[in-house]
Amino acid sequence: MFPLSLNTVTVKEKWDLAACIEGCARHGIPGISPWRDVLQAMGVGQAARRIRDAGLRVTGLCRGGMFPAADRAGRAAAIEDNRRAIAEAEAIGASCLVLVCGGLPPGSKDLPGAREMVREGLHAILPEARAAGVTLALEPLHPMTCADRSVLSTLGQALDLCDALGEGSGVALDVYHVWWDPELARQVARAGRRIAGFHLCDWKVPTTDLVFDRGMPGEGVIDIAGIRAMVEAAGYRGFAEVELLSHAWWKRDPDEVLAIMKERHATVC
Amino acid sequence: MFPLSLNTVTVKEKWDLAACIEGCARHGIPGISPWRDVLQAMGVGQAARRIRDAGLRVTGLCRGGMFPAADRAGRAAAIEDNRRAIAEAEAIGASCLVLVCGGLPPGSKDLPGAREMVREGLHAILPEARAAGVTLALEPLHPMTCADRSVLSTLGQALDLCDALGEGSGVALDVYHVWWDPELARQVARAGRRIAGFHLCDWKVPTTDLVFDRGMPGEGVIDIAGIRAMVEAAGYRGFAEVELLSHAWWKRDPDEVLAIMKERHATVC
Repeated sequence: MFPLSLNTVTVKEKWDLAACIEGCARHGIPGISPWRDVLQAMGVGQAARRIRDAGLRVTGLCRGGMFPAADRAGRAAAIEDNRRAIAEAEAIGASCLVLVCGGLPPGSKDLPGAREMVREGLHAILPEARAAGVTLALEPLHPMTCADRSVLSTLGQALDLCDALGEGSGVALDVYHVWWDPELARQVARAGRRIAGFHLCDWKVPTTDLVFDRGMPGEGVIDIAGIRAMVEAAGYRGFAEVELLSHAWWKRDPDEVLAIMKERHATVC
Repeated sequence: MFPLSLNTVTVKEKWDLAACIEGCARHGIPGISPWRDVLQAMGVGQAARRIRDAGLRVTGLCRGGMFPAADRAGRAAAIEDNRRAIAEAEAIGASCLVLVCGGLPPGSKDLPGAREMVREGLHAILPEARAAGVTLALEPLHPMTCADRSVLSTLGQALDLCDALGEGSGVALDVYHVWWDPELARQVARAGRRIAGFHLCDWKVPTTDLVFDRGMPGEGVIDIAGIRAMVEAAGYRGFAEVELLSHAWWKRDPDEVLAIMKERHATVC
């Protein structure tokens, strides 16, 4: 079984990072993956101490990326921000920095150009990532986010980038983003030990929003147990992180959300 | 320039097939692609005569497919319905039957199983398609429709099926469904003369509905001219069909929609 980790965005409307850390302890959840906004709200140094004192493993920091920009200054600013994110990830002992690579620059239709900006950004921050011992976890996002969130759309595309980047790079595999891919089994096997993070949620039918209508594992149609088996066969031995972006789940009592999360995790992981 | 064709769904809330045929004549649009509901409402025989009398080319019949079903009887019924669709396509002189292959059967998480049902359904109807001279145009649909509309998700996956099916099969390429694909250029070249239909609309930012928020060509971020060039280089010499599923566009005066469609078509095709 992959141990459970709470991605803090799952309860973002009701809990700050302190409440998330306490909640994980209370529910016996051994891992946590904070987003940068809640991390910065607490202060990185204090967060590092409290997470360590609670005995939690930090399965990732969410998120770096967002490399494409309309001009050179914008791209340079994005690279600088990613360097700060690497430093934050190192400070809290995160095993990886999760990268949502970014969409098309405003007004652009140049998809190959945006993908090239992602490639350049990754190469620019790789030395800092290696020096910090923080894996750059490239997260392919569902193709429906290609225009505005991630021109990195498939696991195969992410692994092509990892092939070029080498040491210090890996992939974050979220079942929500990759479950539909006819190449999934082949690409997960190809990924092997480069899987740096494994994220769970579910695809609801119907899905009413392109970003904020994810389901709790078990609530949708993704064969999570099947993908979990592929990931284990590829050699992954890390945590399973539950990451929900959902207006519906954000409204609920976070203690209830964590309890359901634990129960569902036990059935699929 | 690929000549323009009107997919009747583009004006489905205000025009029946008779109005579409007259509208194409009035606006100098040389092609039409009816959906089966408006075709059946007019009657296939009468529709065939009126389309012929108007001098319109029928660039496709929308749509067959929907092969996966929960039980054997459901799958057999889907195959029978596809045979009727092939007969209708032949009757109106459609160059192809566009296939939206279907999603997961209700309650199922077995994606490979659903894909196998699609493969079986296609092989079952291939003899009738060949006999009728109607190309089965496999349409890969955007991955966001995988659960409930099409487990056929990429052009590469469609071409793998075409490789097995051989004569009588091809692909319908809709820019909306494939624009994000990192493999697009390679797969369009691989498709070659198997491109049986080329459909246009656009990806809006933001997109607020997974099915009914398509944009008019030019309204979104798809590099339609770039994809059009790939398609021409692959050897395609057919029509460019505008197919909008959009609550916003359905509300507008169809004569205005056709006028805008013509103008946009001239800028990208």
